[in-house]
Amino acid sequence: MVETIRWVNNHIRILDQSCLPNEEKYIDIDTVDKLIEAIQKLRVRGAPALGIAGAFGLNLVANSLRNESVADFTSQLSLAAKRIVESRPTAVNLKWGVDRLMNIIKNAPDNVPQCVELISQEAMSILQNDIAMCTALGKHGAELIPDSGSILTHCNTGGLATGGFGTALGILVTAHQHGKKIHVYVDETRPLLQGARLTTWELKKEGIPHTLICDNMAGYLMQQQKVSCVVVGADRIAANGDTANKIGTYTLAVLCEKHTIPFYIAAPSSTIDSDLSNGKNIIIEERHADEITDGLGRRIAPLETPVYNPAFDVTPANLITAIITEKNIYKGPHYNFTGVCNN
Amino acid sequence: MVETIRWVNNHIRILDQSCLPNEEKYIDIDTVDKLIEAIQKLRVRGAPALGIAGAFGLNLVANSLRNESVADFTSQLSLAAKRIVESRPTAVNLKWGVDRLMNIIKNAPDNVPQCVELISQEAMSILQNDIAMCTALGKHGAELIPDSGSILTHCNTGGLATGGFGTALGILVTAHQHGKKIHVYVDETRPLLQGARLTTWELKKEGIPHTLICDNMAGYLMQQQKVSCVVVGADRIAANGDTANKIGTYTLAVLCEKHTIPFYIAAPSSTIDSDLSNGKNIIIEERHADEITDGLGRRIAPLETPVYNPAFDVTPANLITAIITEKNIYKGPHYNFTGVCNN
Repeated sequence: MVETIRWVNNHIRILDQSCLPNEEKYIDIDTVDKLIEAIQKLRVRGAPALGIAGAFGLNLVANSLRNESVADFTSQLSLAAKRIVESRPTAVNLKWGVDRLMNIIKNAPDNVPQCVELISQEAMSILQNDIAMCTALGKHGAELIPDSGSILTHCNTGGLATGGFGTALGILVTAHQHGKKIHVYVDETRPLLQGARLTTWELKKEGIPHTLICDNMAGYLMQQQKVSCVVVGADRIAANGDTANKIGTYTLAVLCEKHTIPFYIAAPSSTIDSDLSNGKNIIIEERHADEITDGLGRRIAPLETPVYNPAFDVTPANLITAIITEKNIYKGPHYNFTGVCNN
Repeated sequence: MVETIRWVNNHIRILDQSCLPNEEKYIDIDTVDKLIEAIQKLRVRGAPALGIAGAFGLNLVANSLRNESVADFTSQLSLAAKRIVESRPTAVNLKWGVDRLMNIIKNAPDNVPQCVELISQEAMSILQNDIAMCTALGKHGAELIPDSGSILTHCNTGGLATGGFGTALGILVTAHQHGKKIHVYVDETRPLLQGARLTTWELKKEGIPHTLICDNMAGYLMQQQKVSCVVVGADRIAANGDTANKIGTYTLAVLCEKHTIPFYIAAPSSTIDSDLSNGKNIIIEERHADEITDGLGRRIAPLETPVYNPAFDVTPANLITAIITEKNIYKGPHYNFTGVCNN
């Protein structure tokens, strides 16, 4: 299993994903500033991994406040929680991880060392639960994968996006382990190339046959009937099933509708935001222009070229064949998650 | 006007497009080998520019055979014609340019110097006709552009793709010159980034407002009703209107159908291949894997990652709102080009 994010000697250790696939480099994080930098530079990314990162980040802060008064402990922890949550606004899992720890101390005794201990236990259980959750999600999802065929995926939803097992890609790993003869088409996923850099790296490690394509080739593959189904992850799912995910996901869903190909979303139930009735009000993070113009080693556009760089798009529920969580498979187009999620 | 390809001092001079937008470098080509290298490395590219390149290439050869016998002249010229045509199999314009010159000598007197002179005149007229053709095409197409709005385009179809004026992009330049308040969304166009590198460079020179996006963002823009129409070029058009163009074009056409947005193809009538009843038998050129994995300055995928890299896709005629040539606007979905093209 990939050691995406671990708690080692009282700090966070992450595999720096911005260096993959050329270098497998681990970095140690011992301050919230360093964590926020790592989140914003996508050294750690993927919705579930961000949930763990948020919790581990707060655990870092709690540890550093061990000798403070209860009032100072609580106020400084709250401040850090807010900063962590705001470091990537679309990633609901960051908030989920942080909130889980903040809820612990709401009901905790007025004793800072005890609070620190409770927070630490909860943070560690988030990682362990993530691995168990992904394993369950993988088993559910594998049922939907044909015994043989080519599955297209977008971005990275593997062990690198989670505590180590993966969501959408974890489904494909599980199907492969069950003996299904699958081949995976990997969208390179511009601008940051998580598919080209990370998903191919994981599939190679797992020994699963795969082929890398540019994002704009998916339609042509479908036209040639080379795609059995599409499985992607989610960054945020509204109560009606509308799903925010990596930019380009919506286009894949439209292409699947045109070619009558199943389009699956795979995500932990914590990704479901029951406070959000539909996808219309999901804030779409816009990222820096230079991710597009300079991010690949050389400048690819004239200086000062205006750029639009939304990180996500929203796929309406009616284009989603099913949403797969660790709890169940929910079939579309009408979704009802009442009682599904804890947040 | 961009000096994409010119005949200077008995050789071909091209603006090396593989160096744009960072460097404006002209190179001189005096052998067929150098021309084929330039075509295959995309130093000169774009269907109409390739037609001129094919003709200029044969003109080079004819000049070098000035002192041969008629039999040797004809056989060596035929051999060179075949090599030029085969250097990029999908580009029908290469064949069109070469054939125009070969037809000249079919009816020419048995006199090599006279043949060389006739070939030279015909090659020069191909460039002049291209500029006149693009100007006419631009005027036709500009009628379809709204008085204000955002137009999305893919790849490069500007002066750099032609003798200097452009096809699809020439339409937008003409509309802008007519005072229409347009804004252009430019697909970066992976893998070779002709949109990011070349189209933005041309739009900047023309002073037309534009925004660069990644290919996978077009669907999201359309979902937000930010796209008035899509205008792209063509590498080959079948008799029924099926159109081969840069990979990613088919996906744009599907997205336009989904969002009820006009989808226009713009190309010289020489792009219409009347021998081809539909798009099913168009040979799709597959290009090297390293264009995707290594083409941007640093390696973006693990070593030996399998890659699929088709250069084109085929958009069925029923997804095309209209095909614009220098002769007329042909409205879809049923196309009849009888008598339109010369080839």
